[in-house]
Amino acid sequence: MNIVRIAVLASGDELLNGNISDTNTRDIARLLGPAGYRLNTALCVPDNPEAIARAILALIPQQDVIIATGGLGSTGDDLTAKTVAQALGRPLEENPDALQMIKKRFSDRELNPQVLRQALMPQKSVPLPNREGTAPGFWLRQQGCDLFFLPGVPSEMRSMLEQAVIPALKRSKPGGVPLIQRDYGFFGLSEPQLESRLPYAKFPPEVEVGFSLDYPLVRLALRSASIDAEQKLDEAEALLVAQLGDYLVERADQTMAEHVGQLLRHAGLKLTLAESCTGGLISQMLTRTAGASEFLERSAVTYADTAKIDWLNVPAELIATKGAVSAECAEAMAAGARAAAGADLALAVTGIAGPTGGSDEKPVGTVYLALAAEGVCQARGYKFHGDRVKIQQMSAYMALEWIRRFALECLDT
Amino acid sequence: MNIVRIAVLASGDELLNGNISDTNTRDIARLLGPAGYRLNTALCVPDNPEAIARAILALIPQQDVIIATGGLGSTGDDLTAKTVAQALGRPLEENPDALQMIKKRFSDRELNPQVLRQALMPQKSVPLPNREGTAPGFWLRQQGCDLFFLPGVPSEMRSMLEQAVIPALKRSKPGGVPLIQRDYGFFGLSEPQLESRLPYAKFPPEVEVGFSLDYPLVRLALRSASIDAEQKLDEAEALLVAQLGDYLVERADQTMAEHVGQLLRHAGLKLTLAESCTGGLISQMLTRTAGASEFLERSAVTYADTAKIDWLNVPAELIATKGAVSAECAEAMAAGARAAAGADLALAVTGIAGPTGGSDEKPVGTVYLALAAEGVCQARGYKFHGDRVKIQQMSAYMALEWIRRFALECLDT
Repeated sequence: MNIVRIAVLASGDELLNGNISDTNTRDIARLLGPAGYRLNTALCVPDNPEAIARAILALIPQQDVIIATGGLGSTGDDLTAKTVAQALGRPLEENPDALQMIKKRFSDRELNPQVLRQALMPQKSVPLPNREGTAPGFWLRQQGCDLFFLPGVPSEMRSMLEQAVIPALKRSKPGGVPLIQRDYGFFGLSEPQLESRLPYAKFPPEVEVGFSLDYPLVRLALRSASIDAEQKLDEAEALLVAQLGDYLVERADQTMAEHVGQLLRHAGLKLTLAESCTGGLISQMLTRTAGASEFLERSAVTYADTAKIDWLNVPAELIATKGAVSAECAEAMAAGARAAAGADLALAVTGIAGPTGGSDEKPVGTVYLALAAEGVCQARGYKFHGDRVKIQQMSAYMALEWIRRFALECLDT
Repeated sequence: MNIVRIAVLASGDELLNGNISDTNTRDIARLLGPAGYRLNTALCVPDNPEAIARAILALIPQQDVIIATGGLGSTGDDLTAKTVAQALGRPLEENPDALQMIKKRFSDRELNPQVLRQALMPQKSVPLPNREGTAPGFWLRQQGCDLFFLPGVPSEMRSMLEQAVIPALKRSKPGGVPLIQRDYGFFGLSEPQLESRLPYAKFPPEVEVGFSLDYPLVRLALRSASIDAEQKLDEAEALLVAQLGDYLVERADQTMAEHVGQLLRHAGLKLTLAESCTGGLISQMLTRTAGASEFLERSAVTYADTAKIDWLNVPAELIATKGAVSAECAEAMAAGARAAAGADLALAVTGIAGPTGGSDEKPVGTVYLALAAEGVCQARGYKFHGDRVKIQQMSAYMALEWIRRFALECLDT
């Protein structure tokens, strides 16, 4: 296998002073993998000519390709072109193709010296068009190493990488076998539980497994760089589904909420929600994706008792005797919401998300969900841990999980 | 000023194969700055003994301190201790203090060889307790360089850095002047607009400014490493507030929604929401923080016309003649929601978030907001750009902005 050694070099004070996290490295890896390239290192340095020059000169003999991000543009801290020109002993000159790119983007009125500065590049650079922003990137070769200089703004970087860098790289240094990656999200198992139940031994040896946490989900990635990667991943995925399909709630680009929405549409079920402690979170998750109006006509956020009584027809005496956070209240909310909305299915949540409002009997994290449908009205009690946001998230995912299983059952019968 | 050269070294295949982004570097910089330390470089390498060893050996002569993350623990790819031992020629041995830390954390039953492996450290290491997880970190000194090895899990890393690393570092290599940072979020101005209106010239020269985008907000950080940093930052902040205070919606740890909630509580205003295209997003933002029940008794997500008619008392003929996405419908939703909830203030949103549902007359991005209060019922129309999620976010922030200005006016009079 042809291994091209590729490093990412990010320059920017904001990456080292705590202002922002570098997300470009992940995006670059994601886009390069399927094209047959891997990253072997990533380096962040400040916006400082000496640090940038030192890093470039150290990387050139070690790497086949350097993808540098940041420091292009027209403001004072955009000093990459000048620094590279000096470090590599190539005079900075106005690149006529880059000038054309800039002129195409700006009106005559706006073409001031600051804007035109963006056409200055080290001698023998190839400019790379920027479809999302103003500053062109550039590509040059030094001692056999291909150096690509891209903007630091993520959307501009990604577009330039896809449109200009990968095609250039393929001509200059053909990649190896593509790295194909598939992503899955599991709900209801901890990372150790998931790991211990994975049928590793049966997986094709060409498939690698990676975990990451994304509360309350556990994410799993299957990766393969085999020539028949898709087939090997199909085999591993089939084992995964057979063994753990019950907990598999997200795939590739479909979130759990999108999946639940799809199931509801397929099952032809109209849903309504009555949210107390989740405050609209479940509705928001389901309506983030297009098509929600096909299954969700309305939802209620009923924080106060009066709202539960008015809109959901929860008996005042039930709240007085059992409390608003109780299985009985959750059931009454679900049944009332279903009737009010004329929906097939209603899901209600009531609980104590904290940090205050807990008691010995009902501590923070006490949450009741209830589901009402034709001939069914059932509550479940939970005791969740963590801070307010985690309790809300866990409640919302648990609600989606219940709706998911209900819709699957409807589709099954 | 005493400058301690500090590098972060993150090891992990998942950081280079596109699985996750490194967020530890940002957190480390945030925690070290106020203690008087800065990062000068950050490096990511794969889970590969050679790559880790090469990076450590290259960094030791260049740096005063190396903070390494990842590769601790008890699974197969946790190979940092062994790799460091080999690279530095220090035999791996069972550290009695580390063993104590592990025994304290596990029951006798769980103390299997895999768990006990976490007590193996290079000779002359000082173990660092892990309050959030199982694997202790370790600290050693080589050729005058302090090397700290921390877990890669962000919560474990942060806790160990605060509790153990920073105190050790302060004794070993006193830091310089603290870097104090203050964060602000602006709504309603683009980054270039914000930049051009900043009173840079009047800012104390000891204050640095940094921007970042966090749609739909523009974030600004003021930083100072002056001995009287707090005073210089106060001066800069006063100028910022005088010039741009109208657009300043977030500070430090208070989100815009939290700020709006606080204003509503101070003004003693009860709010209700009627959300169509935002699907619960505004409610969710306001209820994410504790105390929402003091001002929010209920909200309605009314996607379907029938829901607007039933719950909000919007006249069916108004929807038939003007359409559900219209200034008139938004006003009727706000007025109806206010009456239904008995609230002081109601805010309604109706619009086309897309990607489908647009027309020539009302394209995707057409959004109407309306506010109803005592003697007021007013709608505003917008044309937002971007995908569905961006249109929802922009609508929600615009709604919060209107509520914020209304509450401020109430507090003023």
